[in-house]
Amino acid sequence: MSKANRTAITPIRAENFPLWYQSVVKEAEMAEMAHVRGCMVIKPWGYGIWEMIQSKLGDMIKACGVENAYFPLFIPLSYIQKEAEHVEGFAQEMAVVTHHRLEKHDGHLVPAGKLTEPLVVRPTSETIIGESFSKWINSYRDLPIKINQWCNIVRWEMRPRIFLRTTEFLWQEGHNAFATAKEALDDSMLMIDVYKKFVEEWLAIPVISGAKPPYDRFPGAVETYTIEALMQDGKALQSGTSHNLAQNFSKAANIRFSDRDGETKYAHTTSWGVSTRLIGAVIMTHGDDDGIRVPPKIAPLHLVVVPIQRGKDAQQDAAVIEYADNIIKRLQGCTFSDGLPITTKVDTKLISSTEKRWNWVKKGVPIQIEVGPRDIENDNAVIRIRSEGPLDKSVISIDNLLSTVPSLLDQIQRDYYNKAKSRLTESVTKIETYAEFEKYFSSKDSSGFVLAPWLPSDQEDSRLKKMSVTIRCIPFDQESRKMTCILSGKETSMTAIFAKAY
Amino acid sequence: MSKANRTAITPIRAENFPLWYQSVVKEAEMAEMAHVRGCMVIKPWGYGIWEMIQSKLGDMIKACGVENAYFPLFIPLSYIQKEAEHVEGFAQEMAVVTHHRLEKHDGHLVPAGKLTEPLVVRPTSETIIGESFSKWINSYRDLPIKINQWCNIVRWEMRPRIFLRTTEFLWQEGHNAFATAKEALDDSMLMIDVYKKFVEEWLAIPVISGAKPPYDRFPGAVETYTIEALMQDGKALQSGTSHNLAQNFSKAANIRFSDRDGETKYAHTTSWGVSTRLIGAVIMTHGDDDGIRVPPKIAPLHLVVVPIQRGKDAQQDAAVIEYADNIIKRLQGCTFSDGLPITTKVDTKLISSTEKRWNWVKKGVPIQIEVGPRDIENDNAVIRIRSEGPLDKSVISIDNLLSTVPSLLDQIQRDYYNKAKSRLTESVTKIETYAEFEKYFSSKDSSGFVLAPWLPSDQEDSRLKKMSVTIRCIPFDQESRKMTCILSGKETSMTAIFAKAY
Repeated sequence: MSKANRTAITPIRAENFPLWYQSVVKEAEMAEMAHVRGCMVIKPWGYGIWEMIQSKLGDMIKACGVENAYFPLFIPLSYIQKEAEHVEGFAQEMAVVTHHRLEKHDGHLVPAGKLTEPLVVRPTSETIIGESFSKWINSYRDLPIKINQWCNIVRWEMRPRIFLRTTEFLWQEGHNAFATAKEALDDSMLMIDVYKKFVEEWLAIPVISGAKPPYDRFPGAVETYTIEALMQDGKALQSGTSHNLAQNFSKAANIRFSDRDGETKYAHTTSWGVSTRLIGAVIMTHGDDDGIRVPPKIAPLHLVVVPIQRGKDAQQDAAVIEYADNIIKRLQGCTFSDGLPITTKVDTKLISSTEKRWNWVKKGVPIQIEVGPRDIENDNAVIRIRSEGPLDKSVISIDNLLSTVPSLLDQIQRDYYNKAKSRLTESVTKIETYAEFEKYFSSKDSSGFVLAPWLPSDQEDSRLKKMSVTIRCIPFDQESRKMTCILSGKETSMTAIFAKAY
Repeated sequence: MSKANRTAITPIRAENFPLWYQSVVKEAEMAEMAHVRGCMVIKPWGYGIWEMIQSKLGDMIKACGVENAYFPLFIPLSYIQKEAEHVEGFAQEMAVVTHHRLEKHDGHLVPAGKLTEPLVVRPTSETIIGESFSKWINSYRDLPIKINQWCNIVRWEMRPRIFLRTTEFLWQEGHNAFATAKEALDDSMLMIDVYKKFVEEWLAIPVISGAKPPYDRFPGAVETYTIEALMQDGKALQSGTSHNLAQNFSKAANIRFSDRDGETKYAHTTSWGVSTRLIGAVIMTHGDDDGIRVPPKIAPLHLVVVPIQRGKDAQQDAAVIEYADNIIKRLQGCTFSDGLPITTKVDTKLISSTEKRWNWVKKGVPIQIEVGPRDIENDNAVIRIRSEGPLDKSVISIDNLLSTVPSLLDQIQRDYYNKAKSRLTESVTKIETYAEFEKYFSSKDSSGFVLAPWLPSDQEDSRLKKMSVTIRCIPFDQESRKMTCILSGKETSMTAIFAKAY
């Protein structure tokens, strides 16, 4: 794998992007599909990124006055029934618990203790949290209430794709309730903005934010806002959503309060979430033919030291380890940008240094340092920066290394963002007629975002489906001039982003 | 509630401890039982404590070289079957998923899409993690492997008690695998020691650590170590366990590796966990008749400022809020013991200041500050310390307050620990004969720990069960002199801790 024309990942992106993605997830030891159909095992490197997301996004959510809590995994079937009566299009692929015991019959365990009411494993928690809200909220003094939970979610997936669409996944779901319509509207916009900021600043993924078309809103929502990212294969990935449920949900869940004026009113609610799917977005935005490249600000490890041990001279080998440990020690307490601590380690696994090097390339650790006997003599190290070629390296003095690392990490973060931002900007094609639009998307390898005039409609245009194209969003950012909708031919002042999508 | 002879919690501890406990959980807004049988909703104040536990214990676990990961919620029935064949006494009260869809029939949703193999909602993850280990571990170079997950767990509980025993609860479960028996033994001891340190230093709960009697080990374990805490009603609460599974589990799960000597061997594994039960331990150790008292080092909030607003003079009210905000601002960046940041807030809820004061007393926030118009004039504040009486207060200058808070928090933490430590020490009664033992525990209000000579046995003595007494542990700390076992009458050099327990 050390030859210049080899890549650590096969196939490469250009050959087969979906297989490249799967290969990166495997080779970077991020996750693997479990024996349990559609479920995944998130391995330490993948989970480490999720922990960084939880920590950093978690802080931003708390800064909005939201408190974390935890609600039951199981939802009584009657809650889902009530919800189903209120909203059309409620997804029904859910795991259902029907028994609460295993009994041995002829040496085999079989389900026993049938429940009088089946329990559904939460596919989302509006109904169960709504049940609590209806008890907790009585007066305007109890509002607003802002609650978030980090938890696991189950939606039975027929075509699972690791991180992107799995039967079980991890997410955060926020559920806020307000006294007025305006507060709920503002909140749903605020939270999509928090997601945009987080995804752009921390994951280095530029997104376009806007509203979903009316027919693509979350069931019960009067508006669904979304952030849409562009993957390297030119497909869109919905990366976070925020819903303004107005009073629709509070009416179903009976969330009422007596207002200042003494009248009993229904609360106005919002809900918003992002999931482990974001890890997939990081891979498909920043990955290259040698693996994932993790943006420093969410990397579980920023700098790894690979000691070059010859295995012939025990004293020399020990000196190399000591030298490596010393570098780590001197980096302790070091931070980059906004005070984020730099995490480091020496890789002491019992494998060859070449194997180590490629492991870390595939995992996308931002900075690799190699130290061997010769480096000790000269007080040097070899530095490899993941944003450059995997074989690019340079010799650096230890003093220089220590003073350079913080700014280097900042720079790598910026580079990843800027590269993805250029790709997104360049991918947007402006189209003003249906003929042009059809020509664009009927090309087999059409990719990227199309920005075209569109008059919002309650029905999805059947021609889009045929082309496997969807409206990703009506961007917040609008020119507001008079145009002609490419689908209906009617006058409109709006544009929408069209794309093929995950 | 402001009268000196009233308490915020009814009943008080002396009247009815179990009801007092329930009342504290409710009044401190820590959690509540959900409509879903045996499941709880963990409210922000309770969840905030759990987040502190996750963060601080999480750091200690990582410092042992353990990495976090995430494994599926669902376990195929066949895995449980395999496990059940290997170990006796496998708990079988589990939630079983049998269907993966809801379908509407006559307007009603019913389970559909029957699974060919039922799935069990994880009651613990040895089997599913073992499945991964058997794939990941091939060579001695892959060992040790140390994995931890924070997740939800389901065990169908017939007699749920909030935080102590619920159908769904949150926990961390560590699963380590080693090449040698000694490493696994050392690891199982190390992890119980980590728990002891964490629970004593952070939760301010003194514990006795030791080994469970042979008949009370985790199924498949050759040793189960435990930390046992004493609740204020004199009952023991098992607060964390660590199991040395030796090769028993690796044989069931086929976790093998080729060793340095070329031979194929089974790995030696450990598992260890603590759960949201720890929150119950905090309540029953530190709570008083006015609510919970949260040890500062795990308090989600250390200092709350209650502004006294008269509601008559808007300008004056605004000045009070400004004064309160200013105190908070001046405390920003302030830390106590080992650099832990002090968290603060102004309570601006639209309720009376008396109501606020009692809310925070019941929640056990360590320090309350009250500020009103008169305080502004004198640059003063009223300070209430939760470890003192709820009506005790003193006037303090702002400068003095700011310089005092860090050491005050340290002192409160110490006070809580010392008080609990005295109670534990004083509760231990040394008994050397069965007659004395029987007399002690046959008293209706017997409480506390009894330390008595015991010769380890594979069978639980039936007389213990009749007295509702259990052996909590064989303490690590032993005198090792010759004694007579109070149960068998045989010679022994060991003592055990006996108690009534949760």
